[in-house]
Amino acid sequence: MRILVTGAAGMLGRKFCQRLAAVGRIADQAVESLTMADVVEPPAPVGAPFPIGLETGDLSQPDVAERLIADQPELIVHTAAVVSGEAEADLEKGYRINLLGSQYLFDAVRRAAFHPRLVFTSSMAVFGTPFPEKIGDEFLSAPLTSYGTQKAMAELMLADYTRRGFFDGIGIRLPTICVRPGKPNLAASGFFSNIIREPLNGQPAILPVPDTVRHWFASPRAAIGFLFRAAEIDTAKIGPRRNLTMPGLSVTIGEMIESLRRVAGEKPVRLIRREPDSAILRIVEGWAQNFDPVRARSLGFVAEKKFDEIIRAHIEDEGAGG
Amino acid sequence: MRILVTGAAGMLGRKFCQRLAAVGRIADQAVESLTMADVVEPPAPVGAPFPIGLETGDLSQPDVAERLIADQPELIVHTAAVVSGEAEADLEKGYRINLLGSQYLFDAVRRAAFHPRLVFTSSMAVFGTPFPEKIGDEFLSAPLTSYGTQKAMAELMLADYTRRGFFDGIGIRLPTICVRPGKPNLAASGFFSNIIREPLNGQPAILPVPDTVRHWFASPRAAIGFLFRAAEIDTAKIGPRRNLTMPGLSVTIGEMIESLRRVAGEKPVRLIRREPDSAILRIVEGWAQNFDPVRARSLGFVAEKKFDEIIRAHIEDEGAGG
Repeated sequence: MRILVTGAAGMLGRKFCQRLAAVGRIADQAVESLTMADVVEPPAPVGAPFPIGLETGDLSQPDVAERLIADQPELIVHTAAVVSGEAEADLEKGYRINLLGSQYLFDAVRRAAFHPRLVFTSSMAVFGTPFPEKIGDEFLSAPLTSYGTQKAMAELMLADYTRRGFFDGIGIRLPTICVRPGKPNLAASGFFSNIIREPLNGQPAILPVPDTVRHWFASPRAAIGFLFRAAEIDTAKIGPRRNLTMPGLSVTIGEMIESLRRVAGEKPVRLIRREPDSAILRIVEGWAQNFDPVRARSLGFVAEKKFDEIIRAHIEDEGAGG
Repeated sequence: MRILVTGAAGMLGRKFCQRLAAVGRIADQAVESLTMADVVEPPAPVGAPFPIGLETGDLSQPDVAERLIADQPELIVHTAAVVSGEAEADLEKGYRINLLGSQYLFDAVRRAAFHPRLVFTSSMAVFGTPFPEKIGDEFLSAPLTSYGTQKAMAELMLADYTRRGFFDGIGIRLPTICVRPGKPNLAASGFFSNIIREPLNGQPAILPVPDTVRHWFASPRAAIGFLFRAAEIDTAKIGPRRNLTMPGLSVTIGEMIESLRRVAGEKPVRLIRREPDSAILRIVEGWAQNFDPVRARSLGFVAEKKFDEIIRAHIEDEGAGG
């Protein structure tokens, strides 16, 4: 199978490619080749049993999508995006990259008429308050950020282009990914990962919201699992509603901290400094807290069931706190 | 108040302008000037107590939107669109006119920074099966046509641009407009109007679906009422979810025919010829049958309560069957 990954320098794209290199297979087929594309040159995983092409280019520029799909990949994993903070700060850039870039990719695939599987990483940001206690699969997308708006618009086009047979699309709405490795990016949700990652590495971390704040999480490992599942699933079972809220875990900050204590003891917990920030709290209060993703679960998408698993996955995958 | 109407040669745009010319006021203000714009020159209503400018131009071409908003209208009524049949038959044209044309208009308004009220005519086509018995205000947009997809995408952008303060937007999701005057357009829903309009004029009409088919209607008069209401409403009451399912009337074909019999007697009813068409039935079965538009009703949008009223409005407004 020939594969194209956009946003391959980003955390998810990179981890997906690393996993591909490690297992050499996806959707019951050997990987024949992998194209990793991003606006900066993506880091190729070492030791892959297949050739890897590295491409740099901005999907929102004409002809870049055409170049990236030149070898007609059977699987496209489209993760390229600017994050929520940046899409809010720079309106035109957000629409250009997140919406127009996706449109250019979808249209290039349509015109080339090779009908690949196309997996699109969407976000729980397509939802906006007020919410029911648990957001079900039939709840409206009424985003309250430009990022969520752009993802929701691309979702609609993905479903339409799938219905019309241009490609076989799946949009997967990711929970907040936690624990994110590395340094914080521009996402306003950064502190959720910081309060676990930094203390595990002996560093202090600031908690700007109360312990009662509830949120919806999956590990990077679970997210890569979603991508693999989306690549292999029998799409005839999905029907025309191709955008699926992924499973996740709904926990409070207090529960996260208890989990950190169970997994790593009292020492990291003491490194969490409570510095309430009403501006951040106001943003976080607009985010979904809990979902009932019946469809995705029935289609075989699996996330963690306890936050302890999320912390352990982080320690195992990143060698954190070791 | 200065007003711009796009799609002013279309049925709704034209009727809205006629009504403006007749009453001379909207949202408690005198109309100062009206710009009617479309891809063909729109027909100016006679006897308007304000100057009318006629503009031709395609909103999906660069700089057309800038020209249309040059006098910074306080109210923009954006009805320009290609209809569902055409958007399905010509994919690129549908996305170009219905999505890109709307985006160009929204962006031109954003850049000119004059913050008008912007009323956008959306459609019940933003919804797709399977449906609950009545579609509520929190039901997802999962359209099953490219037209519905384009309307849903424009809705999202309208809500985002409103949230960001670029304009004061309202999207109104129209029911199927019945009885449409004049000749059938490319909409697949044409027969709903044909079976009333043609017999009232002594002409035969073909009914391609069973009498049990249920659908969601409002008269052209009610639709124009929605536009006036959307222009005058205190938008602070709406909140960030700016796209509203309009009220309407849920009736079966059988009930429509009984209504025609009550209003106009047996003779027109005999002109309805039943010629089942399974292709049309399949399309119609994908359409919503009933809604529970609590929000729009509470915001003062009003539709007919009986189909007899819809037929009488048609006879009064169009001089049909007279």
